Amino acid sequence: MLGAMQDWDLLVTKVIDHAAREAPNREIVTHWADGSETRTDWAGIRRDAMKMAQALEALGIKKGDRVASLAMNHARHLVSWYGVAGMGGVLHTINPRLFEDQLEYIANHAEDRVLIYDAAFQPIVDKMRSKWTSIEHYICYDPPEGSDALGFEEWIAPQDGDYQWAAIDERDPCMLCYTSGTTGNPKGVLYEHRSTVLHAIAAIQPAAFCFDASSVMLPVVPMFHAASWGLPFAGAMAGIKFVFSAVNEPAVLCDLMERENVTDSAGVPTVWLATFQYCDANDRPLPKLRAATIGGSAAPKFMIRRLMEAGIRVQHAWGMTETSPLGTVGGPTFDWDQLTLDQKVDKAAMQGRPVFGVELRTVDLEDRTKVLPRDGEASGALQIRGPWVIRRYFKADEDALTPDGWFDTGDVAILHPDGTMQITDRTKDVIKSGGEWISSVELENAAAGHPAIAEAAAIGMFHPKWDERPVLFCIRKEGQQVTGEELIDFLKDHVAKWWLPDAVEFVDDIPHTATGKISKKDLRDRFADYQLPE
Amino acid sequence: MLGAMQDWDLLVTKVIDHAAREAPNREIVTHWADGSETRTDWAGIRRDAMKMAQALEALGIKKGDRVASLAMNHARHLVSWYGVAGMGGVLHTINPRLFEDQLEYIANHAEDRVLIYDAAFQPIVDKMRSKWTSIEHYICYDPPEGSDALGFEEWIAPQDGDYQWAAIDERDPCMLCYTSGTTGNPKGVLYEHRSTVLHAIAAIQPAAFCFDASSVMLPVVPMFHAASWGLPFAGAMAGIKFVFSAVNEPAVLCDLMERENVTDSAGVPTVWLATFQYCDANDRPLPKLRAATIGGSAAPKFMIRRLMEAGIRVQHAWGMTETSPLGTVGGPTFDWDQLTLDQKVDKAAMQGRPVFGVELRTVDLEDRTKVLPRDGEASGALQIRGPWVIRRYFKADEDALTPDGWFDTGDVAILHPDGTMQITDRTKDVIKSGGEWISSVELENAAAGHPAIAEAAAIGMFHPKWDERPVLFCIRKEGQQVTGEELIDFLKDHVAKWWLPDAVEFVDDIPHTATGKISKKDLRDRFADYQLPE
Ligand SMILES: Nc1ncnc2c1ncn2[C@@H]1O[C@H](COP(=O)(O)OP(=O)(O)OP(=O)(O)O)[C@@H](O)[C@H]1O
Ligand SMILES: Nc1ncnc2c1ncn2[C@@H]1O[C@H](COP(=O)(O)OP(=O)(O)OP(=O)(O)O)[C@@H](O)[C@H]1O
Ligand SMILES: [Mg+2]
Ligand SMILES: [Mg+2]
Repeated sequence: MLGAMQDWDLLVTKVIDHAAREAPNREIVTHWADGSETRTDWAGIRRDAMKMAQALEALGIKKGDRVASLAMNHARHLVSWYGVAGMGGVLHTINPRLFEDQLEYIANHAEDRVLIYDAAFQPIVDKMRSKWTSIEHYICYDPPEGSDALGFEEWIAPQDGDYQWAAIDERDPCMLCYTSGTTGNPKGVLYEHRSTVLHAIAAIQPAAFCFDASSVMLPVVPMFHAASWGLPFAGAMAGIKFVFSAVNEPAVLCDLMERENVTDSAGVPTVWLATFQYCDANDRPLPKLRAATIGGSAAPKFMIRRLMEAGIRVQHAWGMTETSPLGTVGGPTFDWDQLTLDQKVDKAAMQGRPVFGVELRTVDLEDRTKVLPRDGEASGALQIRGPWVIRRYFKADEDALTPDGWFDTGDVAILHPDGTMQITDRTKDVIKSGGEWISSVELENAAAGHPAIAEAAAIGMFHPKWDERPVLFCIRKEGQQVTGEELIDFLKDHVAKWWLPDAVEFVDDIPHTATGKISKKDLRDRFADYQLPE
Repeated sequence: MLGAMQDWDLLVTKVIDHAAREAPNREIVTHWADGSETRTDWAGIRRDAMKMAQALEALGIKKGDRVASLAMNHARHLVSWYGVAGMGGVLHTINPRLFEDQLEYIANHAEDRVLIYDAAFQPIVDKMRSKWTSIEHYICYDPPEGSDALGFEEWIAPQDGDYQWAAIDERDPCMLCYTSGTTGNPKGVLYEHRSTVLHAIAAIQPAAFCFDASSVMLPVVPMFHAASWGLPFAGAMAGIKFVFSAVNEPAVLCDLMERENVTDSAGVPTVWLATFQYCDANDRPLPKLRAATIGGSAAPKFMIRRLMEAGIRVQHAWGMTETSPLGTVGGPTFDWDQLTLDQKVDKAAMQGRPVFGVELRTVDLEDRTKVLPRDGEASGALQIRGPWVIRRYFKADEDALTPDGWFDTGDVAILHPDGTMQITDRTKDVIKSGGEWISSVELENAAAGHPAIAEAAAIGMFHPKWDERPVLFCIRKEGQQVTGEELIDFLKDHVAKWWLPDAVEFVDDIPHTATGKISKKDLRDRFADYQLPE
């Protein structure tokens, strides 16, 4: 050998070791479902994770076994992330908002051996227990007084915490997340130690979450949604303070943000919308954050503008469960200070730029072998490559990649010359009219810009001549009036003429998935017999 | 297989690919030795690196072969970093300020096959040529009009740039740097693709260089000094603008910083000192930087204070050639905003905190098996572990690690409970008096705080009763007066009584190494016959 650098595997255990060593007393605050609050710190998280690892081994859990959680955001859930990974297990974070058949499907598909759940989800556990065939042990994170469930703290208490993390290879799995089920049944993505650690190092850079020791993050994005966007790992790496809330009421969140000097928060657009509504109704200013990350679905412009006007840096992020999830983030561009507010809003309404480790390309929707130019115009199927991007779904027989090694996202996007990526649709939702593509997302965003519209969803309906024509389903804001004609008139200023919907239908609700996204699948089912007006 | 994430090796080629794809037109400016200026961009750097890779292959250079550079900072040097690594070669960046015997030793030890050099170093090449036994090809980065040397641009021009990066494993080497030779002959450190990429991702985080697209960096630290602290890789990853200067005159640097809107710079303390002196003499304000990184030797407090008072964030960094070199950096702590300026200066005078990927410990100087507490008091031998830390020196027969896998830095340090590391000395320079240790660095820093002292070096001299006693060698500032007694009086307020030097000797110069550090080895040699006063 000529010479060499050290062997040092990229392991999740090293992340928690680092946090406990370098930021031992940086706080982890939890607001629990019952309104109580507890405080621990990185040293405490690591100590409890070691005890939990011992407790799992005592149950006979082995390397590679799946341990499930059905829980909101709190410190004990965080302990489980490191405790399960640290003994070589795989934490499967189940989304409690999934439908019953999905809940049944994924726990059995994952072959979970242990389930640790919040008392709030006891009804789900009671209902599903007989259908879950592999779960041997049920443990409750926060058993109410008098409950006969085994409590998490009670369970790990007998362990002495004198534990050596299991011998793990950096390509071993540490976590299992299923996709949101927007386009079909949720699919399992098995994160590895290496992919998780690389994702976390990338996530703390200024162009992404921009974490340093002074950051105080309240993640509203749940720990069961794409690993809470990797925040619990990135935050440990940078030694930040976390504020968790097991309830997502805006009043609680705003109080917590104020009281704990929260600097950063992250959530899907509906979370930010709920914050706006609460603050308006209660005459409260928006929380004083440094940065707000919005992702999971497209962030509408009015939302971006309002946050920016409040002095908050907006990070519009795009990602998928399959990409750990960080794909692109809209941090400031090199010329940010020279842009007007309007220009900033326009830029931030796109999905941002890839950090190192993410490679993007778009290919023709019809001819997938044809790579499209990054010209800010051509829109095509978005494909991605990188060390934290999926190769093969959990238990699948085949890799989920193109013959030349790219993962097809199922999204339709435009790549701009400056690296900015703009999602225009999902391939399944794009509306094909007369051989041309109409972006359902752009139509919806334009409609949401009307002051009387609360939410809008565009889907393509069969048309004998044009193949498909767009129909817009809208919810009016409470107390507001607008007709379909008025809305179409309004849209004329914002989209091409041939994009204008053939009809606008006002509805009382629009179906959503378990992660709060519009479910076009359900909308299409609901309106299966819909007839376009002549 | 249960499921998996993608295979995606951490390669230096991916770094330049990323920069050229995502920030193709972000500028790379060079101020050349002849005063001319050129501009290229990341797309240009990659294009030229591909041509250079082809040109090297045309010379018969093979994977693993060493290609040397003897050059200052400029865009063609940067091209070489990626061109050599991209064809599987190893770039050996030679320090032109090394002494002749060192120059002879390292080029032959490295078995360099090609040397690419600046015209400014033609005299070195002419003198050494006959002693360098392995170099087959000499190429000049900037041949003056009429020179018969092969010019770099001329050499790569015939290539078409249609190149596929070589097939490289992430553990393959990409770069060879020798240490500064402060304590003995320079030792070769062979950086790998993986170690280099991980170091770069870590380096862009807010707690380290804090790079994003808006950063404009003028690295004064030379590209031959510990890979210019990894900046050329970190900067590419974040798509920053670089401003290089092949000359290090403060007037040129200050002009460039102003003209090119430089936000960041980095250099050893003497570089910052020269900037102060130039600005004072010319009644110019300090450059308006966001951040100044100081490393390579301890940054004195007056320097830190002055930069902070000018509104510049000070990043006092510690590292070694053996650690790629990032070990610790003094970015803001979590409570930074609550500190007074004095407290900030005191904190920043220590060497900062480790980023994720760096593990530190201190062990007893006499009993190396005894790990010391992180109590802010115990000082011991500093040891380090991590993916960008050396395992084995180039061509060494044995690993350079302790039996339990740590690299001993040769530095003496104190670890504080909040993670801050404080260098107190080198193990070879520490002064042992009556069984207790005196920190030569602290003595020097205290002396440098006297307004009449320009530079100070403390070394231990033999003492029949105490083993060693400190002697302080000092240079007075021009036109300033101070006696040894007055200085010792001054020191009484700053160090323990038994640390006070037995003698102060005023000298006209203090010997320095090739990277501008005080060479205590040479000082000890020069004063080998020194007698302590009775
Ligand atoms: N900023 C964003 N703008 C627009 N769409 C986004 C954004 N962020 C995420 N998305 C959408 O969310 C998808 C990823 O979501 P997730 O992994 O939670 O599951 P899903 O795709 O909704 O469900 P499933 O894959 O099971 O159908 C992306 O493919 C994209 O369609
Ligand atoms: N911020 C700092 N404060 C104090 N000392 C520092 C700092 N940064 C670096 N150093 C010193 O520089 C050393 C690393 O320097 P480098 O790798 O350039 O070679 P060297 O140690 O000077 O030379 P050699 O190893 O050949 O004797 C560290 O071990 C430490 O002693
Ligand atoms: Mg999906
Ligand atoms: Mg050294």
